[in-house]
Amino acid sequence: MSTLEPGRGTHVVTMRDVAKAAGVSVATVSNVINDKPGARIGDEARQRVHNAVAELAYRPNMLAKTLSQGTSRFIGLVADAIATTPFAGQIIHGAQDEAWKNGYVLLVANTDGNQAAEDEAIAMMLEHQVQGILYSTWYHREITVPPMLQQTDAVLVDCFASGSGLASVVPDEEQGGRSATEGLLAAGHRRIAFINTTTPSPAQSGRLAGYRAALDAAGIDFDESLVFLATPEQEGGFVSTTDIIASGASAVFCHNDRVAMGLYDGLREKGLRIPEDMAVMGFDNQDVIAAHLRPPLSTVALPHYELGAAGVRMLLGLESSSGAVPTLIACPPILRHSI
Amino acid sequence: MSTLEPGRGTHVVTMRDVAKAAGVSVATVSNVINDKPGARIGDEARQRVHNAVAELAYRPNMLAKTLSQGTSRFIGLVADAIATTPFAGQIIHGAQDEAWKNGYVLLVANTDGNQAAEDEAIAMMLEHQVQGILYSTWYHREITVPPMLQQTDAVLVDCFASGSGLASVVPDEEQGGRSATEGLLAAGHRRIAFINTTTPSPAQSGRLAGYRAALDAAGIDFDESLVFLATPEQEGGFVSTTDIIASGASAVFCHNDRVAMGLYDGLREKGLRIPEDMAVMGFDNQDVIAAHLRPPLSTVALPHYELGAAGVRMLLGLESSSGAVPTLIACPPILRHSI
Repeated sequence: MSTLEPGRGTHVVTMRDVAKAAGVSVATVSNVINDKPGARIGDEARQRVHNAVAELAYRPNMLAKTLSQGTSRFIGLVADAIATTPFAGQIIHGAQDEAWKNGYVLLVANTDGNQAAEDEAIAMMLEHQVQGILYSTWYHREITVPPMLQQTDAVLVDCFASGSGLASVVPDEEQGGRSATEGLLAAGHRRIAFINTTTPSPAQSGRLAGYRAALDAAGIDFDESLVFLATPEQEGGFVSTTDIIASGASAVFCHNDRVAMGLYDGLREKGLRIPEDMAVMGFDNQDVIAAHLRPPLSTVALPHYELGAAGVRMLLGLESSSGAVPTLIACPPILRHSI
Repeated sequence: MSTLEPGRGTHVVTMRDVAKAAGVSVATVSNVINDKPGARIGDEARQRVHNAVAELAYRPNMLAKTLSQGTSRFIGLVADAIATTPFAGQIIHGAQDEAWKNGYVLLVANTDGNQAAEDEAIAMMLEHQVQGILYSTWYHREITVPPMLQQTDAVLVDCFASGSGLASVVPDEEQGGRSATEGLLAAGHRRIAFINTTTPSPAQSGRLAGYRAALDAAGIDFDESLVFLATPEQEGGFVSTTDIIASGASAVFCHNDRVAMGLYDGLREKGLRIPEDMAVMGFDNQDVIAAHLRPPLSTVALPHYELGAAGVRMLLGLESSSGAVPTLIACPPILRHSI
């Protein structure tokens, strides 16, 4: 441990590299290196592993390697709520896959929006000499950049900070709103209501802009009396039922799938059928809900996996990014049976 | 970087320790240590930080510290699917909170049940000299222990491996099934149907055992014709509707909340009211579903957060564990308005 070689470039040799060079599994490499008793490995494979280790100058201790190079193969991910939403998980998943693909390991910290926990998480990551930090929120919003984030490279994922100069990657809310509305237009609807959220947010303004753009392109005048506001949960959709029916609309674009689920309950209670009496379009493509409503919900997917993956690519300089304007990721429509 | 001090015990001094000793925030410590220009910190606070750094012999480079001690302050968490289920997130959350509380950082790897990804994740963790590994599955089941896991301390979370000698922490399925059934008994029901899953699993057998135990304790004979099998999703609950009505039951215990959600749809379609015509009890307390059905669903919660936290405590030796029998965590009943 006292004779550390200096690193020979930026690529740290991992067990995976050794396994590839030797034509064996990572598990076999690990067993050979750690001289695991009882592991049944042929002499020939064992020799190939030893040769690959020597050739690649592999050192089992990643930390020693990291230390000699001044930066680690870690990327930090600070998230406000990976646990309390079924959404953010896919951001982590995408970030992890992309990090691994490039030989990095993701350090994940869930802070639940707690400032002290966030400071500690970032401090911990700086102490571990991360290559940079992805800072992510569970829904798309503008944030104030934590001052400590300035001490390393950072990319904002599913959030942005105007004027901060930090690169950012967010869902294309306007395109999503346009695609959702176009789905209803394509099914022949002309009088389309929109249940938007009561919460001011990029999703609120972006999806509305997309709804208006789609109507405009179809030559339909925007009618403000067809836009309703509701809390973005099942309860909000349910209480909107009466207004929706009274509006004379034949189709509804809902701010999200939870609102659509509540509207389903409300329409059913009034004896209306979906889509025969009312077509319904959601937003989010939420895992345990969208595909499992009766009828299965047509919706627009939030591209969480892609947001995480793109964030890592931008952090590593593999994808261009701008500190001035967020990079937009498309929200693809998912057509099922509610329109 | 060439004059590493040997560690002075097992506790690694972190920025948090320095902040505590100096009576300032972690952010202030970071700013002082990194000599951040523009940070407005009083001379007096700055001095206190410097004093605390000297007193505690704090070294900003955690990796150097780790290297000098031979093990790191990392705990690994290998999960099969943190991303594709809204469940496992809380396991991570609990594990992270408990790890941080004890000065450890959680390294999370999502493997999606892919053997090669799993081997790589474990290899990566061994390379980073983790203190040990939590191996977790997104639903409670028996697993075959990955051979590489034997190369470090390990605790199984939400899974177990009979005869492996590894400590394990799992939900108490039988108590959960008993509590669910007791909730229906307490509301005066005597003829209680059970929609169990078609998938053989500890949840399938444990919840059935709990259902039987509760009936037994209430002096009600077990009637096999009241137990139905269905896929553990909304669709399974929906198609069970006819059988449930034909059974003459006044209440139903559903294998999980998704099944209950599908049954809600089915009962509504038949014109039956919940709970007046049929009482419904779920299992899981799934975040975006249970509280938001109409009426809000009474259910039993899976203790995911506690599973993660207990796993860390067992790994660190802060909580006793047995290699012979899994440690059981209680599933608390959550009463809402469906019974």
